[in-house]
Amino acid sequence: MQAVQRISEIDFGHFEEALRCSILFESVKTDVISEFLSMSSVLNFKKNDIIYNLEDKAEWFYLINDGWVKLSRETLNGEEAILDVLGKDEVFAENTMFENFRYTANATAVEDTEVIRLPLGFLANSVEGDSELAMSLLKCSTSKLSSKNKEIEHLSVKNAPQKIGCFLLRLCNHSKEEQSLHLPFDKILIAAKLGMKPETFSRALLKLKDETGISVDGRNFKIPALSNLSQYSCSSCSSQFPCGA
Amino acid sequence: MQAVQRISEIDFGHFEEALRCSILFESVKTDVISEFLSMSSVLNFKKNDIIYNLEDKAEWFYLINDGWVKLSRETLNGEEAILDVLGKDEVFAENTMFENFRYTANATAVEDTEVIRLPLGFLANSVEGDSELAMSLLKCSTSKLSSKNKEIEHLSVKNAPQKIGCFLLRLCNHSKEEQSLHLPFDKILIAAKLGMKPETFSRALLKLKDETGISVDGRNFKIPALSNLSQYSCSSCSSQFPCGA
Repeated sequence: MQAVQRISEIDFGHFEEALRCSILFESVKTDVISEFLSMSSVLNFKKNDIIYNLEDKAEWFYLINDGWVKLSRETLNGEEAILDVLGKDEVFAENTMFENFRYTANATAVEDTEVIRLPLGFLANSVEGDSELAMSLLKCSTSKLSSKNKEIEHLSVKNAPQKIGCFLLRLCNHSKEEQSLHLPFDKILIAAKLGMKPETFSRALLKLKDETGISVDGRNFKIPALSNLSQYSCSSCSSQFPCGA
Repeated sequence: MQAVQRISEIDFGHFEEALRCSILFESVKTDVISEFLSMSSVLNFKKNDIIYNLEDKAEWFYLINDGWVKLSRETLNGEEAILDVLGKDEVFAENTMFENFRYTANATAVEDTEVIRLPLGFLANSVEGDSELAMSLLKCSTSKLSSKNKEIEHLSVKNAPQKIGCFLLRLCNHSKEEQSLHLPFDKILIAAKLGMKPETFSRALLKLKDETGISVDGRNFKIPALSNLSQYSCSSCSSQFPCGA
């Protein structure tokens, strides 16, 4: 059974800061945030723990405080389709209020993960009378739509090595030419997120190494020249690095 | 120069019906719809006409009355990335109010197309004080997000012949086993929308014909058994036909 730690009033300041890092809450009034927090909890999940299942009744939505969460569905022939892998400060399941309060995917912790669990019914009730909150939710949806559009563009116009390069670039520090990276989750999941079979991913990674001079040791990557990686990976995309995708 | 026909008050009833076919306007009050219509026009575009360009100042958003509209961006190496191809009753560019009122893609008529052009500034002003309208806009965004999620799933888990099959299924009458289809726009655009090179599309179409017994003559398709087509195309997807994608 998952340990659920209610947020106490003395911690509101700390968690208000955490909420304000998300687009949804960045400009919501402090008293509204306090109301949310008074009904919220902190939950810690181990790697591969299930947060909720597709079609479960949706009472909560979530903000990721630390770690990574995978949203997925099972295909009819039993494979897993990855819809999203979300990281720190991202909110998920808030749109479920327009989906008959049923979760539209499975949510699973990909690594050890801490989330803030917020009340969905309260969001749904508040948003109807609070046009500021409605605008925040709209901004959040627009930002998600815009990143989905970028993802569709990536999936349709980039070749496999460029897709991997693009994924790596999003983890990079933009100001350093030479850098080291540790992958936040394993390569099989990255392959699935990028719509590749593991064997395609391996071949594409070899090609990316040849083209850009990066080196790989397990989940550790060394990038000798960020400009090489971005030049190669972004050439078939409409946005230049860093694109904020 | 594009012919712009202001909507006259005597036509409000007719165009209210058209607006109500979209998720955005289906439950908006009649007097709000009338205010929108008093500032709206009907525009007719020929095939390949540009409706607006990326980065243009956004004064308007659009509802498609008839025809098809392509949203695209140019990639850095000069190719075209298709973000969406939209049909009747779909609204586009309404989210531009959260993107500094600049269009985030090129919009082009794919066939002869009639659109209703609506005032974006009025939408932005109204939505802040009108929580019903804000909820309608949120529902519209959620529905778009949900279809983008399905599209990402299709792009990442389906093979090329299944992607074409899925595209055809969405044009089919769900209740008839044997049917004929006329493609709404040409195969090169369908290939691009599905993230395939034209030669990949041709090979995949041959394989789809072999697997499902469909026959093709130019833009005309004959489907002898809808159940065969759906069984083949949906097997690697999480939704069963008809999925409403």
